[in-house]
Amino acid sequence: MKNKIKILETFDNQYPHRDYTVTHYAREFTSVCPKTGQPDFAQIIIEYIPNKKCVELKSLKLYLNSFRNDGIFYESVVNFICEDLVKLMKPRYLKVTGEFNTRGGIESVVVAEHKTQKK
Amino acid sequence: MKNKIKILETFDNQYPHRDYTVTHYAREFTSVCPKTGQPDFAQIIIEYIPNKKCVELKSLKLYLNSFRNDGIFYESVVNFICEDLVKLMKPRYLKVTGEFNTRGGIESVVVAEHKTQKK
Amino acid sequence: MKNKIKILETFDNQYPHRDYTVTHYAREFTSVCPKTGQPDFAQIIIEYIPNKKCVELKSLKLYLNSFRNDGIFYESVVNFICEDLVKLMKPRYLKVTGEFNTRGGIESVVVAEHKTQKK
Amino acid sequence: MKNKIKILETFDNQYPHRDYTVTHYAREFTSVCPKTGQPDFAQIIIEYIPNKKCVELKSLKLYLNSFRNDGIFYESVVNFICEDLVKLMKPRYLKVTGEFNTRGGIESVVVAEHKTQKK
Amino acid sequence: MKNKIKILETFDNQYPHRDYTVTHYAREFTSVCPKTGQPDFAQIIIEYIPNKKCVELKSLKLYLNSFRNDGIFYESVVNFICEDLVKLMKPRYLKVTGEFNTRGGIESVVVAEHKTQKK
Amino acid sequence: MKNKIKILETFDNQYPHRDYTVTHYAREFTSVCPKTGQPDFAQIIIEYIPNKKCVELKSLKLYLNSFRNDGIFYESVVNFICEDLVKLMKPRYLKVTGEFNTRGGIESVVVAEHKTQKK
Amino acid sequence: MKNKIKILETFDNQYPHRDYTVTHYAREFTSVCPKTGQPDFAQIIIEYIPNKKCVELKSLKLYLNSFRNDGIFYESVVNFICEDLVKLMKPRYLKVTGEFNTRGGIESVVVAEHKTQKK
Amino acid sequence: MKNKIKILETFDNQYPHRDYTVTHYAREFTSVCPKTGQPDFAQIIIEYIPNKKCVELKSLKLYLNSFRNDGIFYESVVNFICEDLVKLMKPRYLKVTGEFNTRGGIESVVVAEHKTQKK
Amino acid sequence: MKNKIKILETFDNQYPHRDYTVTHYAREFTSVCPKTGQPDFAQIIIEYIPNKKCVELKSLKLYLNSFRNDGIFYESVVNFICEDLVKLMKPRYLKVTGEFNTRGGIESVVVAEHKTQKK
Amino acid sequence: MKNKIKILETFDNQYPHRDYTVTHYAREFTSVCPKTGQPDFAQIIIEYIPNKKCVELKSLKLYLNSFRNDGIFYESVVNFICEDLVKLMKPRYLKVTGEFNTRGGIESVVVAEHKTQKK
Repeated sequence: MKNKIKILETFDNQYPHRDYTVTHYAREFTSVCPKTGQPDFAQIIIEYIPNKKCVELKSLKLYLNSFRNDGIFYESVVNFICEDLVKLMKPRYLKVTGEFNTRGGIESVVVAEHKTQKK
Repeated sequence: MKNKIKILETFDNQYPHRDYTVTHYAREFTSVCPKTGQPDFAQIIIEYIPNKKCVELKSLKLYLNSFRNDGIFYESVVNFICEDLVKLMKPRYLKVTGEFNTRGGIESVVVAEHKTQKK
Repeated sequence: MKNKIKILETFDNQYPHRDYTVTHYAREFTSVCPKTGQPDFAQIIIEYIPNKKCVELKSLKLYLNSFRNDGIFYESVVNFICEDLVKLMKPRYLKVTGEFNTRGGIESVVVAEHKTQKK
Repeated sequence: MKNKIKILETFDNQYPHRDYTVTHYAREFTSVCPKTGQPDFAQIIIEYIPNKKCVELKSLKLYLNSFRNDGIFYESVVNFICEDLVKLMKPRYLKVTGEFNTRGGIESVVVAEHKTQKK
Repeated sequence: MKNKIKILETFDNQYPHRDYTVTHYAREFTSVCPKTGQPDFAQIIIEYIPNKKCVELKSLKLYLNSFRNDGIFYESVVNFICEDLVKLMKPRYLKVTGEFNTRGGIESVVVAEHKTQKK
Repeated sequence: MKNKIKILETFDNQYPHRDYTVTHYAREFTSVCPKTGQPDFAQIIIEYIPNKKCVELKSLKLYLNSFRNDGIFYESVVNFICEDLVKLMKPRYLKVTGEFNTRGGIESVVVAEHKTQKK
Repeated sequence: MKNKIKILETFDNQYPHRDYTVTHYAREFTSVCPKTGQPDFAQIIIEYIPNKKCVELKSLKLYLNSFRNDGIFYESVVNFICEDLVKLMKPRYLKVTGEFNTRGGIESVVVAEHKTQKK
Repeated sequence: MKNKIKILETFDNQYPHRDYTVTHYAREFTSVCPKTGQPDFAQIIIEYIPNKKCVELKSLKLYLNSFRNDGIFYESVVNFICEDLVKLMKPRYLKVTGEFNTRGGIESVVVAEHKTQKK
Repeated sequence: MKNKIKILETFDNQYPHRDYTVTHYAREFTSVCPKTGQPDFAQIIIEYIPNKKCVELKSLKLYLNSFRNDGIFYESVVNFICEDLVKLMKPRYLKVTGEFNTRGGIESVVVAEHKTQKK
Repeated sequence: MKNKIKILETFDNQYPHRDYTVTHYAREFTSVCPKTGQPDFAQIIIEYIPNKKCVELKSLKLYLNSFRNDGIFYESVVNFICEDLVKLMKPRYLKVTGEFNTRGGIESVVVAEHKTQKK
């Protein structure tokens, strides 16, 4: 799973002189439970303020699709995506939210945030 | 695409002594994906506080229609409109929001804001 | 259009010792587009804190009806009403909102506010 | 109309050591327009924090019914009730809202508030 | 109450060659309870197929307003209006519905219908 | 409980030449559970086509209130009212519905109907 | 008002071998009350099965706009439009509905229908 | 599980001369999955027309609670209850519905009906 | 526009021994008004029972996209698609609905249906 | 894909003497588009009247999950499941519905039904 980041493509942010926000709502995320082998389903929400790069939408879709047959915990899904996107785009701000469908009567939400450290 | 701004017309703000807000909700925006050539659809929301000029509504409609066959990223649609309207009207405040229809199971929202720099 | 204000009548605010708010929702406003000559439709919302005078409701209806065949921009409708009501009533606070029906796929909202300047 | 207050009765607030709120929604208020003689209809909402007295509910109904054939402006209905209740109960807080049915395409809301002045 | 019908005016149905339906929803009916003297409130719905005459709307409003201070049972309100409108217009079809507000915790609906007897 | 019917009053149906329907929605019915002694709450709906008599509304309210401290099953409440009203008014049609609030996680509805037998 | 029909244009139905339905919802109709001179507002719904002709949409808009300053009863608005469209298009079926905004607390709906007589 | 029926109590239907319906909505049913041992949750709806007996409500609650630790299929829950109630009350009509909460992303509804055979 | 049908592809219906229905909701249809040259927007709904062929979804998307710059009446859009799909698939049943966005305050719906003639 | 049916398990219908219905709503179905290789998402609804066998719920979940990496048309998904369940259970009635998520701006619904042939 280490090399998933290679699926992602970027394009140059043509408006780096301005802070603006981009939010992607991916409503069809699915992966596999690492304990039971059964499929999990989620909505992944990615919100960021670009720096020099934006993530290209079609590559983002393929990247999210690539988790389809991976066994991975909810908490790891959200943080893994967060870390890859930080490494890829070095955004000024990033928040990744995972809203996971009911399992055993329990619905789960995981949220991770990244802020550029001010020097 | 550089010269789109020529489509836009203005009329004199007859009430420049007062801050007031104008919001246009354009629910029928369409452009073309620069990667796949397939059409994209969005709602564009333009909110501003006029200074000396207001954008005329019919010319705004024609301006937004002019993107119909252009290949352009979501992020650029929103910033391009933002920059043109800043140049055209020099508004006291401007916010442009693009809400893009689902593609590959992903719905996207882009928001750019402009504030007059205080000297 | 200068003399529309003559249509408006007032009655004495019998409770000037207290700040209270009056809101009128006029759902049947119509005027004419100054560019195309086609009719425009809007809801006009007038919210104010009276000072010494209140606007009489029937005269307000006739005043709003008087725009029926005038060619006038959205931005001017809202500010024109705002300025007339300020001149007529010298209210402690006034906000006029115009919510205009879809034209060419675009719906527009204009909001103007007046506050008494504190000396 | 001066003596309407005589219709109202009170009973002792047995819990003056605590601030609590009482709200009455009177959905069937009707009076007469002082200009046209035609009936007006409204919902009157009375919200207050009692001090030493509470208004008795049946007397409040009779009080509100007593406006049935009075010619009175919307603004006066709300303030008149407000002043009578302040005089009657000397409440710690009082808000009276009148939501008046559509007349000539215009719906109106009037809100008056009373706060005990802190010394 | 016998002569209320004199308040009603008609105008000639200019399209008697065609069956069409007219429905009036009068949301502000009020009368007085004949037992308690307290006000009653209702919505009156009048649906009919005109024959040679239509009831004029402003006179209908005045007619309905005229019940304002009459003591009358719910069942009689609906049938009284039904009989007056039959006498006035001789409509091809008529239905009168009265939806009365809650009294003593009870909400009531009364419906009367008139059909022209076929010979 | 046999003599409850004496509480009910009627008035003459002044429009017996016409079939029309009357529906009363009594939202504040309460009685007592015959097993546990705990209070039950229900909405009772009475719909009928009058013959020679109508039930008077205030007496109906008092009649329904009279069940307040009676221990009685849901099924009996609805049928008891049904039988009393049939005996009282001999209506052309009658339907009584009882909608009982949740008890032990169970909500219940009972419906009884009476039709005049055609000879 | 006799010659309003001249505003309407048609185009040839290119699919007369098939019954299909067209419905236009015109939400911005306004005319003037013939009794009071005050503006009326309505939604007009036109549903039809074309024969050899269809009504062109822009001319329909101009036709409906042409009532803007005419004094005309609700019942006549609906039947007038019905008769003009029958004359213009000779449709296989036509229904015209007018839903008129509240006046004097009364909301009104008028419905007229036309069916081709079968020989 | 055979003897669960013993928990249920009846009382005599005092109105057997009339068909009427009783509906119980039990919103808090829980049992155990016979395959996984995990708890299941459902709403059970029981609708019937009594013959000579009615089921007593408190015993019904205890009966439904008795499934709490039983391993049983959805289909059996609904039919088991249906058969017990038929045996207990010999009702003229009975319908039992079970609406089961999501398990493994699947929500299930089971409906069984009983009608007295006409001889 | 004659050759648009060439864009459409089919695949063999592998279940022709059974009647089943397929419905496609295309929410992003856009074409051009033949009178004004301005863009129109619609939802197109295609419902059918396949015979020997099904329309392939991606080719259907490209087919609907191909109207993007065509000047065409609403009535023709719906019937044109209907005729092409009949020719392409010879379905047992087909219904095409076009719901067109507001133009000049008018929203329009067109519905065409095809049934196989029984021999 | 031929052998998927082996995943499904049944248990004996213990109530074959009665017609009752079972409905399963599987909200997390996913397969792969046979043209593009991209994932598809759907809700599958299975409604049936059992004969001698019921499908066991956990095996049904595993069966539906087994489509996860199969390339298959929407129309085939629904009919394939339909045919397998018919073969497995020989139900008295079966309906399978697939509601597929938006692809290229198009949302699709496929419905197949099976009825036992009467001899």
